[in-house]
Amino acid sequence: MKIISFTMIVVSMSVLVACTSKTENTNRNGDEKRDTLYAKDPLPSWNDGDVKKAIIDYVNNVTNADGADFIPIADRIATFDNDGTLWAEQPVYFQFFYALDKVKSMSSGHPEWKTQEPFKSVLNNDMAGVMKQGEKGILQIVAVTHAGMNTNEFDSSVGQWIDTALHPVKKIHYTAMVYQPMLELLKFLQGHQFKTFIVSGGGVDFMRVWAEKVYGIPKDQIIGSSIKAKFDDTDGNPVIVKLPELDFIDDHEGKPVGIQKFIGRKPVFACGNSDGDLQMLQWTASNKYSNLELYVHHTDADREWAYDRQSSIGKLDKGLDEAMQNKWLVADMKIDWKTIFPGRKSE
Amino acid sequence: MKIISFTMIVVSMSVLVACTSKTENTNRNGDEKRDTLYAKDPLPSWNDGDVKKAIIDYVNNVTNADGADFIPIADRIATFDNDGTLWAEQPVYFQFFYALDKVKSMSSGHPEWKTQEPFKSVLNNDMAGVMKQGEKGILQIVAVTHAGMNTNEFDSSVGQWIDTALHPVKKIHYTAMVYQPMLELLKFLQGHQFKTFIVSGGGVDFMRVWAEKVYGIPKDQIIGSSIKAKFDDTDGNPVIVKLPELDFIDDHEGKPVGIQKFIGRKPVFACGNSDGDLQMLQWTASNKYSNLELYVHHTDADREWAYDRQSSIGKLDKGLDEAMQNKWLVADMKIDWKTIFPGRKSE
Repeated sequence: MKIISFTMIVVSMSVLVACTSKTENTNRNGDEKRDTLYAKDPLPSWNDGDVKKAIIDYVNNVTNADGADFIPIADRIATFDNDGTLWAEQPVYFQFFYALDKVKSMSSGHPEWKTQEPFKSVLNNDMAGVMKQGEKGILQIVAVTHAGMNTNEFDSSVGQWIDTALHPVKKIHYTAMVYQPMLELLKFLQGHQFKTFIVSGGGVDFMRVWAEKVYGIPKDQIIGSSIKAKFDDTDGNPVIVKLPELDFIDDHEGKPVGIQKFIGRKPVFACGNSDGDLQMLQWTASNKYSNLELYVHHTDADREWAYDRQSSIGKLDKGLDEAMQNKWLVADMKIDWKTIFPGRKSE
Repeated sequence: MKIISFTMIVVSMSVLVACTSKTENTNRNGDEKRDTLYAKDPLPSWNDGDVKKAIIDYVNNVTNADGADFIPIADRIATFDNDGTLWAEQPVYFQFFYALDKVKSMSSGHPEWKTQEPFKSVLNNDMAGVMKQGEKGILQIVAVTHAGMNTNEFDSSVGQWIDTALHPVKKIHYTAMVYQPMLELLKFLQGHQFKTFIVSGGGVDFMRVWAEKVYGIPKDQIIGSSIKAKFDDTDGNPVIVKLPELDFIDDHEGKPVGIQKFIGRKPVFACGNSDGDLQMLQWTASNKYSNLELYVHHTDADREWAYDRQSSIGKLDKGLDEAMQNKWLVADMKIDWKTIFPGRKSE
C-alpha cells in the first residue's frame, strides 16, 4: 500500500523549524504609489504600474471582438495556483496546519498517541520533534488526517476547522489571508468571460470545502492533488471513502498534465508564485492565442513574508529566471499591491 | 508496464461476431403518439407521456425560487453517460471503430502487420480472427491507436476520423447518431442553469474532440476513462504525451468516484442506459435535494437497436430492476421518442 507522499509537506517541515531565521526583505522600500482613481478601476488594490497596465490591456485586447488578438469565449481559460498565489503559504502550507490541528482534535480517541511518535511531538507542539521522525512521521500524520473517512466526514472536518482555526503568526482566520488583489483579478477575468480554474499542488478535497465561496470558483473548476477513493454502498447509504493511496500530484510537470486531464484545453492566462508553477506557465506560453503569464513575487516582509530563491516553501528560482527571459509579468507584492489581505488596507 | 484494459472493448468484441444473431425487439409496437404542440415545448422530440411530463415538472419545480424543492444554481449538477445515452453504441462502441480504422490508416507504416496478429485480422476485416487473439490482441490494438503520441496528434487523428468515417451499419457519420431527444434535454437543463456533464466509460480525450460542439458541453465538463500522460518539454515545444498505462476507468463504481474527483459535488440529475451507470444513479438518488434518475431503454429495433438484459454492449439488467424498485424514470425509446437521430424524423 502506497501512502500519500506530498513532498511539499515534507519540505515544509524544515521551515517550521527554520522560519525564524528567514532573511528579511531586501527590496527597495518603494513608496506606495497613489492609484489613479479612474472610473471603474477593475483592480483597485493594485498600484498603477507596468504590471497592472499589462493585465488590463491584455484582457481588453483579447476580448475585443474586432481585434486581431480576439480569443473565443470557450478558449478563455485562466489557471491559478493557490498556495502563495491566491492565499498565503507561510510558515508552512495551511493544509499542514489543518493536519496538525486535526491530530490534536483526534487525540482523545487515541490515548496511545501521548507516547507514540510522531503524534507525541505534535501534541506537545514540538515541531523539532516531529522533524526528527522524518518523512515516515509526516506521512503518518497526513494518512490519519486525510484518509480512512468518507468525503462527508472530511468536508465537515475541514469546514469546521476553516471557520474557527487561527493562523499561528497572524492570529486571523486562514480565509482572511487570501490576497485582495487576486480576488479582484479573478473577478475581472470572470467578468470578461474567462473560465477561472485553481490548479494547485494542495489537496483538491481540502480546497473545495472553502475555495468556491472565497474565490467564486465552482468546485468543479478546482484542481489539485488527490488520494484515491472508492464508492461504498454496503449499507444502502452510498458514500465515497478516501483511501491512503496517492492518486495524483498536481505540481511541477503534474500541472500541465492535470490541466489536460481536468480541463482538456490549454490556458491563455496562468498565474503562480513558485517553481512548482513553472511548467504551467510554460504550457500556457505555448498557446497559439495571445497569452499572459504572471508570477506573484513575495517581497513584502512587513505586510506578508519575503522569500524567493532560497525558500523551502514556495521556492521561486528557476521560474524567476525564466520570467525575466520570457518577459512574463512579475507582480512585486511590495510595489504592485496596495492591499494584501482583504479589509486590512492600513497594514 | 500496464497496458490499458477497457473491459468494455473486450466485451464489445464478442458482439462484433454475434451481432447478427441479436434478438429482435419484442416490445409492443405502440403507435407514436402525436405530441401536443403546446407553445414552447422544450422537448419537442419527446412524445407526450409520463416520462416527458415528469422531466418537465421536475425542472420547473426545482428551479422555482418560491418552491420547497428549489435547488440553488451551484447545486444543479446534471450528469449524462455518453455511449447508448447521448449517442448510439451498436454494434460496438464507436471508439472501437475508431481504433480499427486507425489500424488500417497506420498500416502503410507497418508492413509487418500484414502477417502479424491481431493487425492481420483487422486489415482483413476478419473480426472472428481478431477475437481469436483474445484480450491481448485487443489491448495491442488499443495501445497502438491511443498511446505513444502527443495530445495534438491524437486530437487531429480523432477529428479527421469523426468528420469522415461512416458507421458500418447506418452508413452515416457517427455524430449524426446522437439522440435528438437528448440534445433537447441537455439544452432544456442548460437553459435552467443546470451545469451538464458527460460521465462516460469512454475515453475522455476521444470525446473531447467532438463532444463539445455536438452537445454544447465544454471540454472541462466531459469526464471519461483515461490513460496516463506526461509533460514533455525537451525541445522547447511543450507537448503532453499519452502513455500506454491506465489512469482511470470511469465506469460502474468508477462513475461516482469520477464525479467526486472531477466535479466535487453530488448530481441532482443523472441519466444513463446501462448497468455501468447504476452507481451514478444510486449516488444521485442519495442527494438531499430533490433529484431525478433517468434510464434510456433501447426498445426500438426498427429505428435504432433493441437490447437490454442480455446484451454484451450496454447491458441493462440490474439497473432496470432497480429503476422499477425505486421508481426512477425509464424512457422507452420506441414509445417516448418521436425522433431518434437529428434530421431523420421520417425514419
